[in-house]
Amino acid sequence: MGIIVQKFGGTSVADPAKIHNVAKAVIKEKQNGNDVVVVVSAMGHTTDYLIKLAKEVTASPNSREMDMLLSTGEQVSIALLSMAIQSQGYKAISMNGQQVGIITESIHSKARIVDIKTEKLQKYIKEGNIIVVAGFQGVTPDGEITTLGRGGSDTSAVAIAAALNADRCDIYTDVEGVYATDPRIVPNIKRADTISYEEMLELARVGANVLHPRSVETAKQFNVPLRVRSSFNLDNLGTLIIGVNDMEIYKPVAGVAADTSQVRILISNLPDIPGTAAELFGALAKNNISVDMIIQSLAVQGKNSIAFTVNADDLDETLKILDAEKDIIKTADVSIDKDIAKISIVGAGMVDRPGIAADMFRSLANKNINIKMISTSEIKISCLVERENSKEAIKALCKEFELEADEIAAVKGDLPNV
Amino acid sequence: MGIIVQKFGGTSVADPAKIHNVAKAVIKEKQNGNDVVVVVSAMGHTTDYLIKLAKEVTASPNSREMDMLLSTGEQVSIALLSMAIQSQGYKAISMNGQQVGIITESIHSKARIVDIKTEKLQKYIKEGNIIVVAGFQGVTPDGEITTLGRGGSDTSAVAIAAALNADRCDIYTDVEGVYATDPRIVPNIKRADTISYEEMLELARVGANVLHPRSVETAKQFNVPLRVRSSFNLDNLGTLIIGVNDMEIYKPVAGVAADTSQVRILISNLPDIPGTAAELFGALAKNNISVDMIIQSLAVQGKNSIAFTVNADDLDETLKILDAEKDIIKTADVSIDKDIAKISIVGAGMVDRPGIAADMFRSLANKNINIKMISTSEIKISCLVERENSKEAIKALCKEFELEADEIAAVKGDLPNV
Repeated sequence: MGIIVQKFGGTSVADPAKIHNVAKAVIKEKQNGNDVVVVVSAMGHTTDYLIKLAKEVTASPNSREMDMLLSTGEQVSIALLSMAIQSQGYKAISMNGQQVGIITESIHSKARIVDIKTEKLQKYIKEGNIIVVAGFQGVTPDGEITTLGRGGSDTSAVAIAAALNADRCDIYTDVEGVYATDPRIVPNIKRADTISYEEMLELARVGANVLHPRSVETAKQFNVPLRVRSSFNLDNLGTLIIGVNDMEIYKPVAGVAADTSQVRILISNLPDIPGTAAELFGALAKNNISVDMIIQSLAVQGKNSIAFTVNADDLDETLKILDAEKDIIKTADVSIDKDIAKISIVGAGMVDRPGIAADMFRSLANKNINIKMISTSEIKISCLVERENSKEAIKALCKEFELEADEIAAVKGDLPNV
Repeated sequence: MGIIVQKFGGTSVADPAKIHNVAKAVIKEKQNGNDVVVVVSAMGHTTDYLIKLAKEVTASPNSREMDMLLSTGEQVSIALLSMAIQSQGYKAISMNGQQVGIITESIHSKARIVDIKTEKLQKYIKEGNIIVVAGFQGVTPDGEITTLGRGGSDTSAVAIAAALNADRCDIYTDVEGVYATDPRIVPNIKRADTISYEEMLELARVGANVLHPRSVETAKQFNVPLRVRSSFNLDNLGTLIIGVNDMEIYKPVAGVAADTSQVRILISNLPDIPGTAAELFGALAKNNISVDMIIQSLAVQGKNSIAFTVNADDLDETLKILDAEKDIIKTADVSIDKDIAKISIVGAGMVDRPGIAADMFRSLANKNINIKMISTSEIKISCLVERENSKEAIKALCKEFELEADEIAAVKGDLPNV
């Protein structure tokens, strides 16, 4: 007996029949004896349609008006979902971001939530209503409508769960939960029953697309238990994401992820003068280019090498900036390596188990996979490898760290070139 | 130099190209040196589409949720129109009913406006913005979203004009203004340059569908000059609707209207006992059936006749009620006449010009048109005639009261059986 916050994405409410299915899932939780607040996104392709309309009106729509436009999408779905719940015999009431009082910064298209009023929510809950809240949107203290940007509805749900001190926030998606790696690559991969916020965050950053990091960060900050589960299989409880201290047992490695979105830039024959690295990376930072892995070799005969990775989208801009730094680079050689993949193992258990890194390196070496760069954090070790080796690397690491299920699941779809 | 409120309906903003045309009309008024507040309806068939969606979810959608749903339609159009105005180089800002503070009664689907906050509107106007307001919607003091029912956007525009003490409220429609009768029947009919609120109200009640009576009543109440004009022909100033005391000259008869929506019920051989009429019409009123014209003949030999008209939609219900009143009707005969039309002449000038009624009756008699019933008000005289005579009656009356233009306009479309 407590409050459960549920969140359903746009594909779950894409048409009236699907909306009725969501209503059933909501009512099921209510029948369990819980108070339910359900957060929904806009129906199916509504947001895309509205963006297209705006682009037909003007090539560069004003972001305030864009928020005014897009926020209607969720308002349509909350009204329809409330009707569906009511037609199945339960009390429901819809609330848009303004009505709840989801207060955000005064920034359009990517505002952050600063406060959530709970007075009205609590009142309607006490009256026995299922509350249906518009995700992705908020309102500034001045009454301006804002939207929360990518991952916005997940963040709305988690923030509301935190504000209401809810027992749990259930994120319903089209996957069955969080997997230790992409099931398309390792078909017999295990689904995690429990994973920590920290592990989920690292997995999200290195390429697992189940939850937006922002919503996980919010859940971690307010210690909201988060469940990722399938909206098509209500009997499956999915994966519970909780604080590392609340976990009873955990494996040293919770997941393996691959990121193929980066390119490596190698600057060799660089004069070994103090301040060179600072100058180069300062110039990149000033232009908002995020650098991921960096390695600087030891100087030999007054010459140095620096290798680093950036997102492939930023490559052209990066080369332009390096070109402008000719004073520094002078006679250095710049080469680019596009065919790379960053393979990462993530696990909260690494902290107090030495030797995990060595296990990873040996496992890759046994498969003759060459490691080009290495970076580590508290709960993550990443190795840069040739892209053509990435699938084999993932499989080897899943085997090494016992992330496979005993039964082999069927391969679904083509294996993409991850 | 003042404030002009403009209102554009759904067909005027049906697609991005049309929205740009509306933006041009708005900007034109701004270029005239006026501050502009523009009220818009939902795009084209949006409202119908949303109603269809709701009906697919449930046969009887909750009216609160219906208002939540439908109010998104106008929010889409205000955002897009603001973008269009901005893209043409002018400052614009959209506001939904809640943001303006269009306060209504706590009734869903047909709320009446009780107050309009002007603080934010005034602030944005002072900053040089064109304000784009969502019509048809408001908000209760508790923050619940309401809609205003039929004619809602016109009413929003007039009420905002009243609240801002605007110089004028321009209602843009698909007609060129207010005509003395239906141009499809009398092709060379004159368009009125000026007409009074009272005349417009009577014309609306007897079948001229240009403006909803509610918006005209609001304009009359707050003395807001109202202009009905074409959104396709911006050079045409249309018809100005003002208070009768502000009119410099007016004709005794401003317009001729026909209403074919009624049926006549004749109860003959009714015992001439006091209270019979009260009993019958009391029963109809209790069942929300509006009775329009009533004639009671003089009693002859203790027998009486009562004839009255009701809307054709109410006929079955009316007969059921009469049947339940058998105690009263007893041996009376009830007959129904469906082929009737009510032809009305309307004019504020009737009040102080005797003989207008006689002119009307003579004019119809000259065409051998039999008058079945007559009713009069301060500024209106209505005659019930055979429906097949209605076009001839309208033409004769337009000629009698000099409502035709000198030039004969082309007949557009088929003459409907009005």
